[in-house]
Amino acid sequence: MTESEIMKKKIKVGLLGLGTVGTGVAEILQTAKGRNPLVSDIELVRIAVQDTSKKRCISIPESLLTQSALEVVDDDSIQIIVEVIGGIEPARELILRAISSGKSVVTANKALIARHGEEIAKAANDAGVYVLIEAAVGGGIPIIEPLKQSLGANRITQVSGIINGTTNYILSRMSKDGSDYQEVLKDAQELGYAEADPAADVEGQDAADKIAILSGLAFGGAINRERIPTKGINKLQSQDITYANKLGYGIKLLAIATAIGDNKETASSLPLALCVEPTLVPKEHPLYGVNGVNNAILIDGDPIGEVMFYGPGAGAGPTASAVVADILNIAGVQVLNNSLNSLDPLLSAAYWRDCHLVEEREILQKNYVRLITEDSPGVIGKIGSIFGDNDVSIQSIVQFDANDIGAEIVVITHQVKKGAISNSLLSIRELTEVKSVEAHMGCL
Amino acid sequence: MTESEIMKKKIKVGLLGLGTVGTGVAEILQTAKGRNPLVSDIELVRIAVQDTSKKRCISIPESLLTQSALEVVDDDSIQIIVEVIGGIEPARELILRAISSGKSVVTANKALIARHGEEIAKAANDAGVYVLIEAAVGGGIPIIEPLKQSLGANRITQVSGIINGTTNYILSRMSKDGSDYQEVLKDAQELGYAEADPAADVEGQDAADKIAILSGLAFGGAINRERIPTKGINKLQSQDITYANKLGYGIKLLAIATAIGDNKETASSLPLALCVEPTLVPKEHPLYGVNGVNNAILIDGDPIGEVMFYGPGAGAGPTASAVVADILNIAGVQVLNNSLNSLDPLLSAAYWRDCHLVEEREILQKNYVRLITEDSPGVIGKIGSIFGDNDVSIQSIVQFDANDIGAEIVVITHQVKKGAISNSLLSIRELTEVKSVEAHMGCL
Repeated sequence: MTESEIMKKKIKVGLLGLGTVGTGVAEILQTAKGRNPLVSDIELVRIAVQDTSKKRCISIPESLLTQSALEVVDDDSIQIIVEVIGGIEPARELILRAISSGKSVVTANKALIARHGEEIAKAANDAGVYVLIEAAVGGGIPIIEPLKQSLGANRITQVSGIINGTTNYILSRMSKDGSDYQEVLKDAQELGYAEADPAADVEGQDAADKIAILSGLAFGGAINRERIPTKGINKLQSQDITYANKLGYGIKLLAIATAIGDNKETASSLPLALCVEPTLVPKEHPLYGVNGVNNAILIDGDPIGEVMFYGPGAGAGPTASAVVADILNIAGVQVLNNSLNSLDPLLSAAYWRDCHLVEEREILQKNYVRLITEDSPGVIGKIGSIFGDNDVSIQSIVQFDANDIGAEIVVITHQVKKGAISNSLLSIRELTEVKSVEAHMGCL
Repeated sequence: MTESEIMKKKIKVGLLGLGTVGTGVAEILQTAKGRNPLVSDIELVRIAVQDTSKKRCISIPESLLTQSALEVVDDDSIQIIVEVIGGIEPARELILRAISSGKSVVTANKALIARHGEEIAKAANDAGVYVLIEAAVGGGIPIIEPLKQSLGANRITQVSGIINGTTNYILSRMSKDGSDYQEVLKDAQELGYAEADPAADVEGQDAADKIAILSGLAFGGAINRERIPTKGINKLQSQDITYANKLGYGIKLLAIATAIGDNKETASSLPLALCVEPTLVPKEHPLYGVNGVNNAILIDGDPIGEVMFYGPGAGAGPTASAVVADILNIAGVQVLNNSLNSLDPLLSAAYWRDCHLVEEREILQKNYVRLITEDSPGVIGKIGSIFGDNDVSIQSIVQFDANDIGAEIVVITHQVKKGAISNSLLSIRELTEVKSVEAHMGCL
């Protein structure tokens, strides 16, 4: 090591939270050998925890710990604040305060960024600092940075994927074992793959947070998070997984964001179709083989075509890997001794146009519909006529089973507007021969 | 657009070569709308071509074209040189000349970087400029930048994958249609998936170039390209694909680089096992489903676990996407008006330790061996004894067929050193009952 390298000032980091991810980050920084040499230039100088006296599985000098997050955020020696406490408040206030005192921020907080990302990004750009969020989506999978940098030459046309590990684990188990949702959920909770209150995962809200973040980066505009049509897997019946398999599909909880048109219009705002819902995925599709807690994100763009990023979507190690990557990125540009306090535009990734979500009824998709009907000869004809009246073109219609509860009919449509399907199902429900619409999902 | 944005100086690019990739780059730069806004700050000011009068499928002002590459390299108004002429010379000299005149370089030239990457990187670091090579591996798939930046927190333990589209296309077709190698190669040449002289692809040299580059970045040290054990697919018999399928495997041309030990030793040089060869991939492995001209690269690291990057491994659009991503990256840091001419260490990615390749005989792998023997009762016992004498543990031994040419025996071993297999095969060849060792490949 040369003298100038020894003299080089370390980059000082303050950590808010020392839970699973925070501990993973500290562990990486404590064991720099064999990692990128820049890791050894990072120094963890202050850590805010709820209880400084708690016994921990990692050895941290007691002098680094404090119960005051403000003490860390206000520490003038610190250049980068890492926020891994989660939740909206006080995380938002602490991040804004760090920014206003000239610190860059690394956060894994998808709920916060999906809801207040625009406010935080604006504050960061005004202050000339970075807010990096690689760990917010896809655990350790590099996806935020590729969207900001490596794919910048492309007009992105679609972002889609499996971005919630808990639900993918549950669906994989339901498919493999033929078990019911409630049964697998209980197992997943015991194994630590699902939280005690699994609502955010199983109702699709976590995936909606993440697709909002990915879409903002892919399409360059802020996304109205609250307007994303979101369905979870909590109402999914194992019956539908069985039928999907028979028809050559698996069922995955997909988040899909599509640019309407070819994404080069001069219109002032780019229309986007966003939704999160259980979706049939054909066996030959790259997302079909993504099982367990893994995540996979597909990006379609011009001229690149389709690329996929695959890996562990959660967990201490992968998430900490992403957090430290962000710290390194900030450290990397800080080495440049930039005197003007200007920002690398790729790393700061400010929004550069307006986007808006189209109405849910306008979203195009193929559909899977399962009905329970009377086992009478004319019923398929009547159902077919209603779809026809609504301009819904049918790919296949199969009667699976006729027993004492009636006949089970599964319809796969071609790509149509969601509104046309809703209208059709309203009319179909009114048929005296139809006992119930048991399931309705998207289909790739 | 604000006044200061209009006033912003464009970043000037000179292009060496206007073939498929060069044309793709020019097209992206000519159609900035809908892409990252930084694309519109890039101006293509000079293009070196072989023949300025040639008719082209892209409209380029004639004044931009020149037949003198030096004229482009020596143009003082240019900040970034894009080299897409390929080959070792004059590409190497032109790149070194551009570097010495203070220009950053973007290149897709894997053969050059695999052989002279260290010389070029050193020149670039000395001159305070960047040489970026995203397009050299995996077409448009972001893999160079993730290795340099997003995965920097990790100790990488293995890099492996399918990194040659031509051979993957041929193998996919052989597997799907049951056709012979020569037959599919001819088809691939007619379809433009294989070159008239396919040697570099089918003999594995292109894949060896690429794994040398990936390993250098993943493990942080220069790789001795000429020492990578390399076998292609040109001797592969369709028979082996059939048998592999029956045993639950596909055959892919894999490039594999593994750190020996846990990649955190203090030893002065990190030992690496590198090889390129046709390899059996089990059906449940993520690389199994990678077909056609697609590429996929798996990275194993601590603490991230395993991540995969998948997409089109070649073609004008994807490769141009990667070239322009590199241009944007350089433009991004140039915006910082860095006064000290220092470099972002992540982007410049200098080597930071020594690596060396272990002897081929020391490389550990599972093996697939196919033998033609006499159809006599004791032969399996004799073969088994020879493997046993060489400490080769057998996973399965199957006699597939006995006909007039003899019996076909397929052996799958557990993981053993390549040297032990070579010794075994030497002795097996000497058995009077063994007519030939028809095939020997690695196996995941």
